[in-house]
Amino acid sequence: MAKNIQSLERAAAMLRLLAGGERRLGLSDIASSLGLAKGTAHGILRTLAHEGFVEQDPASGRYQLGAELLRLGNSYLDVHELRARALVWTDDLARSSGESVYLGVLHQRGVLIIHHVFRPDDSRQVLEVGAMQPLHSSALGKVLSAYDPVAHSEVVETDFKSFTPRTVTGLQDFESVLDLTRARGWAADVEETWEGVASVAAPIQDRRRMPVGAVGITGAVERVCTGDGQLRPELIAAVRDCARSVSRDLGASRF
Amino acid sequence: MAKNIQSLERAAAMLRLLAGGERRLGLSDIASSLGLAKGTAHGILRTLAHEGFVEQDPASGRYQLGAELLRLGNSYLDVHELRARALVWTDDLARSSGESVYLGVLHQRGVLIIHHVFRPDDSRQVLEVGAMQPLHSSALGKVLSAYDPVAHSEVVETDFKSFTPRTVTGLQDFESVLDLTRARGWAADVEETWEGVASVAAPIQDRRRMPVGAVGITGAVERVCTGDGQLRPELIAAVRDCARSVSRDLGASRF
Repeated sequence: MAKNIQSLERAAAMLRLLAGGERRLGLSDIASSLGLAKGTAHGILRTLAHEGFVEQDPASGRYQLGAELLRLGNSYLDVHELRARALVWTDDLARSSGESVYLGVLHQRGVLIIHHVFRPDDSRQVLEVGAMQPLHSSALGKVLSAYDPVAHSEVVETDFKSFTPRTVTGLQDFESVLDLTRARGWAADVEETWEGVASVAAPIQDRRRMPVGAVGITGAVERVCTGDGQLRPELIAAVRDCARSVSRDLGASRF
Repeated sequence: MAKNIQSLERAAAMLRLLAGGERRLGLSDIASSLGLAKGTAHGILRTLAHEGFVEQDPASGRYQLGAELLRLGNSYLDVHELRARALVWTDDLARSSGESVYLGVLHQRGVLIIHHVFRPDDSRQVLEVGAMQPLHSSALGKVLSAYDPVAHSEVVETDFKSFTPRTVTGLQDFESVLDLTRARGWAADVEETWEGVASVAAPIQDRRRMPVGAVGITGAVERVCTGDGQLRPELIAAVRDCARSVSRDLGASRF
């Protein structure tokens, strides 16, 4: 098998390093974190800076992610067919449900949010496009884990971190959740990822019936659930309607 | 001077190629566009795909930008001090002006939008974070060109494309616009970039009084201008207030 290009792999590792944790790092930190000689690390950083992928603070000399990543990330959204097809349907879902809507795809052992429609009220909300959600606790993540074999093989290797007392952390319990998800055609997250927050999500399939993403709503548990902690049936129906509409727009057959 | 790393430069060129124009390209197209042998191009693309920076469509074999760019672009926003400091002030500006607010920085001979607050009404609006605006015609671009010597040296080398009959396309005329911008402390764009749309913007400076970005409002020319085509004074004042507040938060002195 052909080898990948080492300098590119190292550059990608640097960008990932700068995207997590400290976010502003000096040359020594970067070199030692990646086990590289300082001269090697500097050559890569200088090239990345020249291309706009990293920026160096003139005062401290520390490196951080560069603006070119934002521009390219935006171009990624423009080209993404799933997102383009989902725009109208997710707007409708936010309006009919009164809750915020998220569209996610599998990425790096998590769910990458590629579209987010704000809850249609006047509250201050932060756009979460580009953010990640956990595979094992979020409704979007459970849907992907249940329907996408790649997601499933990745989630069983994660550490099932407990975010709240309700997070399912045992592998066997989690597999039962996935069985239930496949049987019902949707997944729920009632305070398993965030206290006080509940979500429901359904799978989106393309013309080959491959799971290409998941769509769901998220809101305060008091609004999204009934008094006995069950998801409101009309919200489940709205989410599944939306997922089916997007799937049909992607060429999935109706039956 | 030390040389940059060729494979990294080529990888960056591929990502830029995929971010513009066609957006889904085959191996041959990519190789010939960049003047590379197919084997060389394939090695770089395979590594980029492995790192999530490009994705290959299984049906057509064509390449497009990958999800990792969205994730890293989002991390760039998280780390950006200007954006973090501006969040509250730009929300206030949108509320007081009733128009949408944009925060931009110089990037690649244009203005990169790093924050966008929707106009506070119920209209459907598309988030433009990550999008580019032209330096020579937009209000944000004129502010950066007037105050940032790097932006100025870049704008004079662009082709001053005419977007509307009102776009200033002559270099001498443009320099007069910049003189006026510096004298007034703000820049306007009345239907010079988009028909029917007017903007006003002001510079943001850091503790060293360096221009680090620009903030402005954009809206229908009928709302933003008076009957005789002048920007409404209260909107200019609101934009300049916002720019001063962000500058002070960045450590700029009051006088």
